[in-house]
Amino acid sequence: MDYRIADRVQALNPSAIREILKYAADPEVISLSAGNPAPEAFPIKEVAEISARILAERPVDVLQYSTTEGYAPLIRRLKTYMKNKHNVGREFDEMLITAGAQQAVELVVKTMCNMGDAVVCEAPSFIGSLNSFRSMGGKLIGVPIESDGMSMTGLEEVLRTNPNVKFIYTIPNFQNPSGITMSMEKRRRMLALAQQYDVLILEDNPYGDLRYEGENIPSIKSLDEEGRVIYAGSFSKVLAPGIRVGYAIAAVPLIKKMTVCKQGEDVHTSMWSQIICDEYMGQYDFEAHLNDLRRIYRHKYQLMLSLIEKHLVPQGITYDKTQGGLFVWCHLPEGTDMPTFCTLAIKEHKVAVVPGNAFLVDEKQPCRSFRLNFSTPSDEDMIKGVEKLGQFAADFLKK
Amino acid sequence: MDYRIADRVQALNPSAIREILKYAADPEVISLSAGNPAPEAFPIKEVAEISARILAERPVDVLQYSTTEGYAPLIRRLKTYMKNKHNVGREFDEMLITAGAQQAVELVVKTMCNMGDAVVCEAPSFIGSLNSFRSMGGKLIGVPIESDGMSMTGLEEVLRTNPNVKFIYTIPNFQNPSGITMSMEKRRRMLALAQQYDVLILEDNPYGDLRYEGENIPSIKSLDEEGRVIYAGSFSKVLAPGIRVGYAIAAVPLIKKMTVCKQGEDVHTSMWSQIICDEYMGQYDFEAHLNDLRRIYRHKYQLMLSLIEKHLVPQGITYDKTQGGLFVWCHLPEGTDMPTFCTLAIKEHKVAVVPGNAFLVDEKQPCRSFRLNFSTPSDEDMIKGVEKLGQFAADFLKK
Repeated sequence: MDYRIADRVQALNPSAIREILKYAADPEVISLSAGNPAPEAFPIKEVAEISARILAERPVDVLQYSTTEGYAPLIRRLKTYMKNKHNVGREFDEMLITAGAQQAVELVVKTMCNMGDAVVCEAPSFIGSLNSFRSMGGKLIGVPIESDGMSMTGLEEVLRTNPNVKFIYTIPNFQNPSGITMSMEKRRRMLALAQQYDVLILEDNPYGDLRYEGENIPSIKSLDEEGRVIYAGSFSKVLAPGIRVGYAIAAVPLIKKMTVCKQGEDVHTSMWSQIICDEYMGQYDFEAHLNDLRRIYRHKYQLMLSLIEKHLVPQGITYDKTQGGLFVWCHLPEGTDMPTFCTLAIKEHKVAVVPGNAFLVDEKQPCRSFRLNFSTPSDEDMIKGVEKLGQFAADFLKK
Repeated sequence: MDYRIADRVQALNPSAIREILKYAADPEVISLSAGNPAPEAFPIKEVAEISARILAERPVDVLQYSTTEGYAPLIRRLKTYMKNKHNVGREFDEMLITAGAQQAVELVVKTMCNMGDAVVCEAPSFIGSLNSFRSMGGKLIGVPIESDGMSMTGLEEVLRTNPNVKFIYTIPNFQNPSGITMSMEKRRRMLALAQQYDVLILEDNPYGDLRYEGENIPSIKSLDEEGRVIYAGSFSKVLAPGIRVGYAIAAVPLIKKMTVCKQGEDVHTSMWSQIICDEYMGQYDFEAHLNDLRRIYRHKYQLMLSLIEKHLVPQGITYDKTQGGLFVWCHLPEGTDMPTFCTLAIKEHKVAVVPGNAFLVDEKQPCRSFRLNFSTPSDEDMIKGVEKLGQFAADFLKK
């Protein structure tokens, strides 16, 4: 049968990461390609305690239908937390609980974009969001990322020449895949440009709490006094991703429309998951937990850096340092065939990394970069994996 | 600020049911307007047992990211179950686990419809699906429902005159809101017409297991030998809706595209929820549980019928009998102002019912019907609620 798939979706393919992950399912493969939190970062005992308590004390709250907006106590708690800790949220804002930040991102493009409306993003950027924009017919325009964030001259040029831009998508902290953090100056400049050209900003901040070094930089949303910035947050990296809880904070008219769209998408987010988040934040020491996470990941990051220096740098591979998050962005020498490097690494040497072109607006553009993850592998696997990658690189790059 | 909402979404409003439910939050209001399962139908003890066990034995499976397709053991179990029990699923089919059947429906329209492509549905039909179709720019064409299902002459006329129909949406069993079940003859005829005009069928079957009387009728999907029917199933009415688990069974090329769309929508469905469904089906007597549900709802349905006969029929209100599901569809006498009746019922008499026009393609069309729910209220509330509604009707209708 010819299924006459919608034009938006016809060209949409499973992400390269997913294809890589299929090979990575081979137990012999050491995966440096995932973006999963470290299993030792999950508060397992606490989740089990909360689950037992809520299923004993108020099972119907857990099992019955609820409102699309989200579990009211979680919304109240998160609003207070985000306002007090991050100065995010004003009188004109509202919150919507979503199935991970991924759904917050998807609801923004669904709510805002007619076919062919443009979305400006960092190049490279997170493939899950790019595919979400594509699936709704958004036209992607990538602006190169520099060591202090998206190029502002590049952004201005894009906004000046594209009247149909609906929003700028940015991951300002420890960006996926580059690990780059946007400077305060550029955050202010991005907001000013958004005002000048009357576009919105979608600020996706899944990694903000995972800073291992340096000082926190205020979010763009914390500078927003008119409802121009939509903030997407997530429990995936600070509690657990399998529960699928995120949230959007944006001006009331946007949240209202996003809520109607969410109603037609999944009615509401899993109640067990929402109550777990609320009880965890309320009953346990969330700040101490975040410090534990930072300790776990700081160690893994430093181990990864030492391994890169030892095994990859001598082969002419360069990399960008980060101050948080889950990834290191590496670059093969000029003139190298990166896709072949990544393919052989996994097929013949059983080490999975993500080819950098997966994160581009046009996957066919030339690219020498690949992404290494240090949050998922055990220390032992990381040591073995980077060593193997270095041995293969020595061989591959001398050809 | 002017947010320049997408055209598809601009006209989309929160459903009338949601507005009614806001009044229904008043503790004095007796709600006959919801579509929630009876709380006594939840297997609370079993869910608590499973949750404790899985969080003790394999917490990382519950808390970590997983694949978009769904939890593999649940997919295997459900495929076998649907094939053996309902003859649903062929070699050319695949399954995708979704966040309730609502997401299965939304992923179908997202995957299939370009702006302005048409979706044929029963008139009246389930508002959540109608809004989902609207949110993706689908053009809705309603075909009147008769006592044995959608009018087949009406359907043929629509298919003959509308070349851009992508699929027919039907709830064949105990339809929401009408309670009507499609006859076997019409199921065969609908499939033949879909073949003749080369359109798909989306068969939404959330209530199929809740038959209290009469014989099961095979699903349209069980007749499908070429991959023309997409089947949407749900755990919401047979286990619990707050966990948000449903599934789609369709031809491989469709499931592949729906999976890519789901990846950009929520990555995957809550793992706790999926494992609860799998363990419940595997470790407990699911058939006995379904029989318990039927017993609970049969009682509630019969109570509702006796109350309608006693309090509403004497006022000239008619109704359609059903053989399962959660709803009774009632009709005010000719010439009555149904919206005012429903509004006064809740505002002045504290009884909430859903005005029938909420279920129409064009909510402004004239409509004399309203929907009564018997699954959510306690017996006591149902008795009080229908009695009050009857007293108000006596007063309202004699004017």
